Amino acid sequence: MLGLDPDPAALWPEALEGLEPDGGRAAATAAAVARHCRAAIEAVGPACVAVKLQLACFERLGAAGWAALTASAGAARAAGLLVIADGKRGDVPATARAYAQALVGATPGAFGPVEGLGADAFTANPLLGRDSLEPLVGAAAEAGAGCFCLVRTSNPGAADVQDADVGGRPLHELLAALVDELGAGHVGRSGLSCVGAVCGATRPEHLERLRQLMPHAIFLLPGVGAQGGGVEALAPAFAPHPAAGLVTASRSIVNAHESRPGGPRRAAREAAEELRAAAWALAR
Amino acid sequence: MLGLDPDPAALWPEALEGLEPDGGRAAATAAAVARHCRAAIEAVGPACVAVKLQLACFERLGAAGWAALTASAGAARAAGLLVIADGKRGDVPATARAYAQALVGATPGAFGPVEGLGADAFTANPLLGRDSLEPLVGAAAEAGAGCFCLVRTSNPGAADVQDADVGGRPLHELLAALVDELGAGHVGRSGLSCVGAVCGATRPEHLERLRQLMPHAIFLLPGVGAQGGGVEALAPAFAPHPAAGLVTASRSIVNAHESRPGGPRRAAREAAEELRAAAWALAR
Repeated sequence: MLGLDPDPAALWPEALEGLEPDGGRAAATAAAVARHCRAAIEAVGPACVAVKLQLACFERLGAAGWAALTASAGAARAAGLLVIADGKRGDVPATARAYAQALVGATPGAFGPVEGLGADAFTANPLLGRDSLEPLVGAAAEAGAGCFCLVRTSNPGAADVQDADVGGRPLHELLAALVDELGAGHVGRSGLSCVGAVCGATRPEHLERLRQLMPHAIFLLPGVGAQGGGVEALAPAFAPHPAAGLVTASRSIVNAHESRPGGPRRAAREAAEELRAAAWALAR
Repeated sequence: MLGLDPDPAALWPEALEGLEPDGGRAAATAAAVARHCRAAIEAVGPACVAVKLQLACFERLGAAGWAALTASAGAARAAGLLVIADGKRGDVPATARAYAQALVGATPGAFGPVEGLGADAFTANPLLGRDSLEPLVGAAAEAGAGCFCLVRTSNPGAADVQDADVGGRPLHELLAALVDELGAGHVGRSGLSCVGAVCGATRPEHLERLRQLMPHAIFLLPGVGAQGGGVEALAPAFAPHPAAGLVTASRSIVNAHESRPGGPRRAAREAAEELRAAAWALAR
């Protein structure tokens, strides 16, 4: 899966060609970001099943950035790819319903419903507990979408809280149990649920145990490449089904031209094809 | 503090007057939301020190919603109020830096820096640990802003994870210790730090212990009013300093006209004045 975390200071050169900041810095920068994302999707799409859009990287450009997010989601759909909105949202139930409307639903109002982003899946933060996740899971199930809850993230600091000892097991196992419970009512014919789990590829030693605890969850596996995780150790994620693991890489694909010849598009495509081949070797 | 969680299906009638959906549903709905927020800020501002903007409620209207968010933040500043961006963001360090740019910083790019929301404070989710919070705290300190980390939220489900037993203490006490450590280097002359804590007013029995663990943190206290929390039990929050507690109410102010006479503006103002009086009685 292609992760897009566009950095306006490191866009592909073609995204900037001919752009002028006439309409203001934010609009021009957001337009360049949208062009960069579309180019990356065109180059890499045939080697991917999905695009993961990092909401923070669009939000920081304000309203124009949100328009670039919508445009990038549209470019991904046009390329036949699934759209995963990576915002790690989590809030009290009333607010969780608003996030669900933003990501996979629509918002009623005096002028009729306003459609949200229309993502195929999104990430969620479970710190606020079951009642904060239920509106997200319910909306995902209704929309035919997926909700990936954080279970064990890929950053070094994840250990501070997610590995805290809760009665003899790490907290991330408690989160895994919550994911399994929430997903139990939403298991399809494939044996996979619409409630998935974010499990960092940087600590693959957890995956076997997490797979035991969440036999029906699709694992979203970030941290391959720039964050240091390897693909080979991810086999337990794919154990129940070839589609039970989604390996995502961002900087190692989009910035591949820094260490490969042929320009950004060719380098990104080659890096993505190598990642796909490595993931498929595990899934089969 | 006035919490704004605008629901497009329940705006003040004056916000809709004369608006037509000529520019599309999203634009008209977002314009009505911005007018609703401005009216509430005008009505209630004199009884408040800050406005808490619930990001989910703007995001669900897309780019137009983000423009309404920016306009509402501007209206709050024009009324002399602090702006608190309530998004409960939390992500790996590289992404946390992007959220910091969105909320209290600016984003460098080919056309020059793009300013973010310019909030005076924001909420953050600590599930990803210390390294995920450091970029947020660093950016807040640099901008003269505040970062409120979730410690014990106001929803019933908070108990599922935040009260999990971690070696004889609930997880929220581990989060409180993290807040205290992160804030230690940022304590001002008032004795208060730029790193604060979100502590739900619905479970005031935790406040005394949390105040022991976080003597320098400003407590953001949601859950008063519609969520069922009372003001009287919040005294421990204010113990170290009259400004060490920020009581926030949303629906109980903005929807006060449902149970009071005089129309939305007058009812909201009266409800806010009563809340202010109750909070000040504790703070003194």
